[in-house]
Amino acid sequence: MKLVSFQQKDRLHTYRIGVLEGDKVIDIQSAYQALLSSGKEESIAADEMESELPTDPSQFFAIGTPAIEKAKKAYQYILNKRDEGQSFPLKDIKLGAPISSPGKIICVGKNYADHVAEMQSDIPEYPVLFAKFNNALIGPEDAIETSDVTKKLDYEVELAFVIGKMATKVKQEEALSYIAGYTIGNDTSARDLQKRTPQWLQGKTLDRSTPIGPWVVTADEISDPGNLSIRSFVNGVERQASNTSHLIFDIPFLIEFISNLITLNPGDIILTGTPDGVGFAMDPPQFLEDGDVVTLEIEKIGRMENKVVHLI
Amino acid sequence: MKLVSFQQKDRLHTYRIGVLEGDKVIDIQSAYQALLSSGKEESIAADEMESELPTDPSQFFAIGTPAIEKAKKAYQYILNKRDEGQSFPLKDIKLGAPISSPGKIICVGKNYADHVAEMQSDIPEYPVLFAKFNNALIGPEDAIETSDVTKKLDYEVELAFVIGKMATKVKQEEALSYIAGYTIGNDTSARDLQKRTPQWLQGKTLDRSTPIGPWVVTADEISDPGNLSIRSFVNGVERQASNTSHLIFDIPFLIEFISNLITLNPGDIILTGTPDGVGFAMDPPQFLEDGDVVTLEIEKIGRMENKVVHLI
Repeated sequence: MKLVSFQQKDRLHTYRIGVLEGDKVIDIQSAYQALLSSGKEESIAADEMESELPTDPSQFFAIGTPAIEKAKKAYQYILNKRDEGQSFPLKDIKLGAPISSPGKIICVGKNYADHVAEMQSDIPEYPVLFAKFNNALIGPEDAIETSDVTKKLDYEVELAFVIGKMATKVKQEEALSYIAGYTIGNDTSARDLQKRTPQWLQGKTLDRSTPIGPWVVTADEISDPGNLSIRSFVNGVERQASNTSHLIFDIPFLIEFISNLITLNPGDIILTGTPDGVGFAMDPPQFLEDGDVVTLEIEKIGRMENKVVHLI
Repeated sequence: MKLVSFQQKDRLHTYRIGVLEGDKVIDIQSAYQALLSSGKEESIAADEMESELPTDPSQFFAIGTPAIEKAKKAYQYILNKRDEGQSFPLKDIKLGAPISSPGKIICVGKNYADHVAEMQSDIPEYPVLFAKFNNALIGPEDAIETSDVTKKLDYEVELAFVIGKMATKVKQEEALSYIAGYTIGNDTSARDLQKRTPQWLQGKTLDRSTPIGPWVVTADEISDPGNLSIRSFVNGVERQASNTSHLIFDIPFLIEFISNLITLNPGDIILTGTPDGVGFAMDPPQFLEDGDVVTLEIEKIGRMENKVVHLI
C-alpha cells in the first residue's frame, strides 16, 4: 500500500491521507466510512474517528500501526467491492510530503563506504547522527528552494523509514516490526554552511530544501530493505547508483542503536545515509542551480523528481 | 509575568498553562474566563477559546505573542480585582517543562570564550548550531535520568529564549521583539557519546536528560538579556559563574543568523551556550552521578534544581 498526502488542486484544502491505486488516489477516511456503513467492521463513534484514523497525514502517522491497519482494511474493502470510494485522479490532485510535521527527523551520515571515501573522511565506528527540522520538508511536487545563503547546494538520495510504534531499547531482531513504511528522502546539504562550523545542522535544514516522498510504501511490501537499488540523476544524468546492501550500519542495527539512546515515536523519520556520487565530490564539484531537476529512485518505492528554484 | 506549566498533584491531570504569583499559580484560562464574564473584554466563542488561548502549555506558546497578551490581561484583571481566580498553592501542584513539545530546540555551542578554551577548542567564526529533540525535555521538578549508556554525563547551564512570533530573515535591530520570554536550560551532555562521532546529537538528546524551566519569564521583564549573571552548582558547590555579557554571539545576532537560514516559529526554544566550569574540563573530570543535585541560576529568571537518577 502506498500512502500519500494529497490535496485537491481546485480548492484550497488541507492535505489528507490517501492510498495510491493506479492513476487515482483513494481518500482513506471516506473508504473507512464506507467499510463501516457496510457493517463488516465495528463502528467507531464519529468523535473518535479523527483520533483513531486522522485525516491529517502527519497525525495519521503519529498514530502509526493501528491507523495503517485500519487504512488497509478500508483499502481492501474498496478494492473487493470494485467501488472507487471517494477517489481522485492524480491529475486533479497535488501530492505533499507524506509527513510534514514528524516529531523527529534523524539523519545518518557517512553510512556508505564509497561516500565516506569520496568525502575523504573515515569509516565511523558508531553511526553518525544529526538532525533536520520540519521547516526543511517539502513534498514530491514541490520545488527545492535555494537562495543566496548558499553557493554549494548538493543532493543526497537516501532510503528513509518511518516509525510505526513507540520504540525504546529495541533489539535488532525485532527492529523491522517497528517500521510503518519506507520513503525516499533527499538529504540536501548546503556544503558551505555544513562545513563552516563543526556541526552540520545549519547546512542541513534550510527552509523548504528537503523533499520526501512521493509516498510511504508500507513495510509489508518491502521484506528486505537491505537490498534495494538506489539512484539519483541531475537533469537526467545519473549521479548516484548503489544498493542499500552497502549500508555500513543497516536498518535493524540503526533502530537498536538509536532506540537505545532516544525513544522513537510513530511518525518519526530516519534517513539512512547517501551513497557516493554527490556533486561536492565531483571534479570539479557541481552544485545544484536554478532550474536543475533532481530525480531520485529507490527500488520498490518509486521515483521522485524535484526542480530547483533559486529565490531572489 | 512568570508563565508555568502545572498539574495538580492530587489528580491525574494534563499540564495547564498558569502564572506564578507569590506562592500560588493562577490558572490562565479560568482567569481569562473571569475577565470575559466581567464584560471588560470582547467575548470569545467557547469553541474559539482553545485555539486562541490554549490550555496546553506547548500549544499556548505555539500561538505565541497573541496568547501571551491575553494571559497578561487576565493576570492583571485578577490582580486588580484582588481575586485569586482559580489558583493553586505551589505545594499542591507540580511544575512541568514550560514547553514540552516545541517545534524545534536549537542549541548554540562554543558561545563563551572561557568555555571554548577549557574544551581546548577554537573560537568559532560562525555560531555552531546543533539540535535536541523533545524526548530529552523534562521540567524543573523532574529528575535528570541517566543510565549505563553513558559514563560521562555533564551539566551546562544556559540562558534559553522562546520565540513569540514567526521569524524569518529578521534583522538584529528588531530581533528582541520576536522573543516571547526567557528560561533556564540545562544542556546536559553525555561527553562519551557526544565525542565518539563528529556530530554531537547522540550525546545531547538522551531521553529525559534536559531540564528547562522553572518558568518562562516574559520578555517585558528582561530588557537586556545580554547582562544576566549565570551560575551552576553541583551538590551546592559552585561550578559555573559568568554573565551573559560574555556570549560570543549575542541573542540579537543569533536571531538574525538563525532566522536567515531557518524559519523560527512561536514556541521554538533556543539555548544560547554555556560558560566555563563544566565537569568535563575539571582536573580530574567530574561527571554527574546518581543522587547528585544540579542547581542552575540565572539573574531575573530564577533557580532550577534537579536531582540526577541513575536508572538500572
